[in-house]
Amino acid sequence: MSVMMHTAQRQTCIDACNACLQACEHCLTACLNEPDVQARVRCIQLLRDCADICSLASQFMSRDSSYAKQICNVCATICDACAAECGKFKDEHCQKCADLCKKCADECRKMAA
Amino acid sequence: MSVMMHTAQRQTCIDACNACLQACEHCLTACLNEPDVQARVRCIQLLRDCADICSLASQFMSRDSSYAKQICNVCATICDACAAECGKFKDEHCQKCADLCKKCADECRKMAA
Amino acid sequence: MSVMMHTAQRQTCIDACNACLQACEHCLTACLNEPDVQARVRCIQLLRDCADICSLASQFMSRDSSYAKQICNVCATICDACAAECGKFKDEHCQKCADLCKKCADECRKMAA
Amino acid sequence: MSVMMHTAQRQTCIDACNACLQACEHCLTACLNEPDVQARVRCIQLLRDCADICSLASQFMSRDSSYAKQICNVCATICDACAAECGKFKDEHCQKCADLCKKCADECRKMAA
Repeated sequence: MSVMMHTAQRQTCIDACNACLQACEHCLTACLNEPDVQARVRCIQLLRDCADICSLASQFMSRDSSYAKQICNVCATICDACAAECGKFKDEHCQKCADLCKKCADECRKMAA
Repeated sequence: MSVMMHTAQRQTCIDACNACLQACEHCLTACLNEPDVQARVRCIQLLRDCADICSLASQFMSRDSSYAKQICNVCATICDACAAECGKFKDEHCQKCADLCKKCADECRKMAA
Repeated sequence: MSVMMHTAQRQTCIDACNACLQACEHCLTACLNEPDVQARVRCIQLLRDCADICSLASQFMSRDSSYAKQICNVCATICDACAAECGKFKDEHCQKCADLCKKCADECRKMAA
Repeated sequence: MSVMMHTAQRQTCIDACNACLQACEHCLTACLNEPDVQARVRCIQLLRDCADICSLASQFMSRDSSYAKQICNVCATICDACAAECGKFKDEHCQKCADLCKKCADECRKMAA
């Protein structure tokens, strides 16, 4: 049963990474097309890093890698930073992305524990 | 409304790519641990390519790239080949992976059209 | 000997992809920090796609994938578009990136042939 | 001048990651085709993880990411493990890969410091 719990927790984390990655990619494109793109440079850079580490975390968990926890640990750090930066912008794509980054950070911290 | 249909179709394809990518990563690890790994070399190579192209397709669609259709087109080709190869093995992970590869190929063909 | 020529050509293409990928990642960060970032939105989107497809092409060639040619074919298309867009900007990072994109497109076309 | 030293060190690390990634992808395909593939399962799993983290490290350094050091830190850990495993096999591809993994681990440790 603990294996099943482990599996369920991992699936939740994979889903959170996939949702976060999609939100980051979408939000990055949307930020580039906002009139105040100049104010969003830091945000865009974090979105790029966040999408890429979420993608790797999702792959490492799916393949049951020995290093999934270490990747999830870095992923949580980048997701937190990205959530904080996205949270500064009031448009819908940034607010939604901030939410999904926070959820992903929480799930990755559980996986890394 | 056609935009909403487009968006729904894209989401279906992104979800199919994510499900296929996860199944391929999982199936690759499982194949490596089967007693007849030697018979699965071609399968393992296809699973590796399939996981990577699904990951890229998912990212290109999420970012609304001008090249999403071209990537989905290659993705459909690789998914078909991977489905055919996985379909040769009777274990649960290969059968499930073959199914998800077929679904992903179908969705990617719709996207590429 | 034809195998050795093949190997040498592939190495040249892998190196061109790696150089192009690095230039694109660097140029993207540099473009984000230019005062006219607003004029570079299309360029930034192409740089993102170009970096990612170069990375995949490099991996597929390194692993001797059956699909390396198909990926190189898409890579050449994206590199050409990225070279054309970067070529519009006079700063050093865009000019250098345009050069490396053109070289990568040429090598990828040879590989895909 | 310290900036130039920093840049030179980073380039050395990017080159080491690219060389390691190529060697890992090549070695993985070669291991799959060895008659004793069954004995190489752990090696193949590490090669897969090592190729992917080297790819991400190369991209994060190229884009001058705030998280390049953290990724390089994980990369050094995985490269060390992969070098140790590859070092157990006497064929040329594993010996060469072990060498390039060790060099990459060393460069990544310097970057992460």
